[in-house]
Amino acid sequence: MSAGKVILALDGMGGDRAPGIVVNGADIARERYPGTTFLLFGDPAKLKPLVDKRKGLAQVLEIVAAEDAVLAEDKPSFALRRRRKSSMWLACETAGQGRADSVVSAGNTGALLAMSMFAMRMIEGTDRPALASFVPTARGESVMLDLGANIECDADNLAQFAVMGSVFAQVLMGLDAPRVGLLNVGSEELKGHEELRQAAAWLRREGVPLSFQGFIEGNDITSGAVDVVVTDGFTGNIALKSIEGTAKLYTGFVRDAFRTSTFAKIGYLFASGALVKMRKRVDPRRYNGGVFLGLDGVCVKSHGGADDVGFAYAIGVAVDMVRYEYKSKLVEGLAKLREVTSAAEAGAALQATGGAT
Amino acid sequence: MSAGKVILALDGMGGDRAPGIVVNGADIARERYPGTTFLLFGDPAKLKPLVDKRKGLAQVLEIVAAEDAVLAEDKPSFALRRRRKSSMWLACETAGQGRADSVVSAGNTGALLAMSMFAMRMIEGTDRPALASFVPTARGESVMLDLGANIECDADNLAQFAVMGSVFAQVLMGLDAPRVGLLNVGSEELKGHEELRQAAAWLRREGVPLSFQGFIEGNDITSGAVDVVVTDGFTGNIALKSIEGTAKLYTGFVRDAFRTSTFAKIGYLFASGALVKMRKRVDPRRYNGGVFLGLDGVCVKSHGGADDVGFAYAIGVAVDMVRYEYKSKLVEGLAKLREVTSAAEAGAALQATGGAT
Repeated sequence: MSAGKVILALDGMGGDRAPGIVVNGADIARERYPGTTFLLFGDPAKLKPLVDKRKGLAQVLEIVAAEDAVLAEDKPSFALRRRRKSSMWLACETAGQGRADSVVSAGNTGALLAMSMFAMRMIEGTDRPALASFVPTARGESVMLDLGANIECDADNLAQFAVMGSVFAQVLMGLDAPRVGLLNVGSEELKGHEELRQAAAWLRREGVPLSFQGFIEGNDITSGAVDVVVTDGFTGNIALKSIEGTAKLYTGFVRDAFRTSTFAKIGYLFASGALVKMRKRVDPRRYNGGVFLGLDGVCVKSHGGADDVGFAYAIGVAVDMVRYEYKSKLVEGLAKLREVTSAAEAGAALQATGGAT
Repeated sequence: MSAGKVILALDGMGGDRAPGIVVNGADIARERYPGTTFLLFGDPAKLKPLVDKRKGLAQVLEIVAAEDAVLAEDKPSFALRRRRKSSMWLACETAGQGRADSVVSAGNTGALLAMSMFAMRMIEGTDRPALASFVPTARGESVMLDLGANIECDADNLAQFAVMGSVFAQVLMGLDAPRVGLLNVGSEELKGHEELRQAAAWLRREGVPLSFQGFIEGNDITSGAVDVVVTDGFTGNIALKSIEGTAKLYTGFVRDAFRTSTFAKIGYLFASGALVKMRKRVDPRRYNGGVFLGLDGVCVKSHGGADDVGFAYAIGVAVDMVRYEYKSKLVEGLAKLREVTSAAEAGAALQATGGAT
């Protein structure tokens, strides 16, 4: 895989509106990211007519037949055992074998997590992938992880997530030293869990390859106080969905406000251009593309309900991760973290021994 | 304390803008809740001139001298030991001794939690208070707890919070059978913590005095899927602050949108009435008044930055809790929960014994 040339394995059958959004998303991405080629897995009878409709797409896209598909209701363990002929598995396997640089799927999240782990394995020193995504903030956007892949996390996991997220922000946002914060309850008297305090202590050590800003609170996520928000999968999932729910609530409030009176309706006519711009700013499609970080490969999960444009954004995340060598940068970062934390643990053990004598 | 007559102990010195907001808030509440009288604790030299400015307020308000005040930076343990002459402590003590029905303070949250627990004690069968508050939703508002008083919670705590929240919603929102949900990560494959599953099992048992709807997700908070959202203090604090942060982000986006062009500015002129209405709908002052539930008494925490109107809302919460007998209803609810869960535990123990033979 030469520089600039990226091969993506696309799960053609995953997502509420597959295969249409996958084919059309690839067509949008093809123009946006020249040099990208696609292996599209799925039912050729369904895929070929769609590809043929998009002029020029067939030149950069090859359909690979898959006779089965993972269903939305499949349990991950079932999918992993019984869906070995599915488009999702074949795409993951192809990436795992190095015949593609990345997988992109809008299918069943749990199945994709299981399959990508099994097909690509983890980078040395990480246990399970963390799900990362962008969130809109007052300053632009930030990265948040884990969003639900790891319900119970220890200090080690959190410190690893911090490195994963920092490298991700470097690569995807072009930041030299992304500011990283650990999500906690802020008040002095309401200190967080022990894992958080230990992770913070490690991340504050000299030599840790990131710019750690300490603890942040829930309201700091959307204020953009940091570029990377690190948390366990339980808290991250609930924080992200709370943000999404509130965004929806406010969008509804604004819509309602312009319907209340004739004056308001006239106001809408004048302000509609500005309001459309505002909607673009918070368009959830721009934040599509959750990534499983920590894999020995690149796997991007598009939202199941994504449309063409949303799926193209997810493809863009995969392209950038490959092109800017996310994986090798993460391997470096994790190795440095391991050095620092092992030294800290050895020091603590020595001290404990010293104290006992 | 006869029906309709409510005596409130107000911490005159707590909050960023005390004592002004306390006196003015009491004056607003006086008209809104006839039959309420106030004991105002603090420095008479500061309080008296403010009270005298408000015509008629002195007839329902008595100033009680307190020579000290809890500071925002005081640790709870320090405040509890060393601020026994403070307005906050004297107000809590007065309520604890039954000489007032409730305390309202905009001061240091941790100190107020410690002092109210010490002065009022807990209702039998509860360990620590849970902090509850209203959140805006698409359907109006919901109650959420715990918002930060209990960082680690077991199934027992969560089940108690569910009863506390349900009774609170009955009393404050006038609902017969508030719908109660446990906050979790929803996907099948990403089940929540063990405590959550156990709490859900208990709450599903026959005889539990509430309408349990099962697990809900982060986006369900602001959609109004349930009337009462139950969670541990860590998750609740982060969810609430994520919601507040997003609300602020969107308010900023709307403001920015109307500044982008002359057209948008003209649109604003036409739509301003509707937009003011929208802002009222999400006015954080309406949601002011966090409550420590589980105390053998009523203690309402106003936001530290509250203004007159916000403080009056916090007073309103206290008045309603007293008038509609929150405490005695909670005692009943908790007794029923204990019956059901003890029976369940006895059953489980029997079964375990049976399995071993």
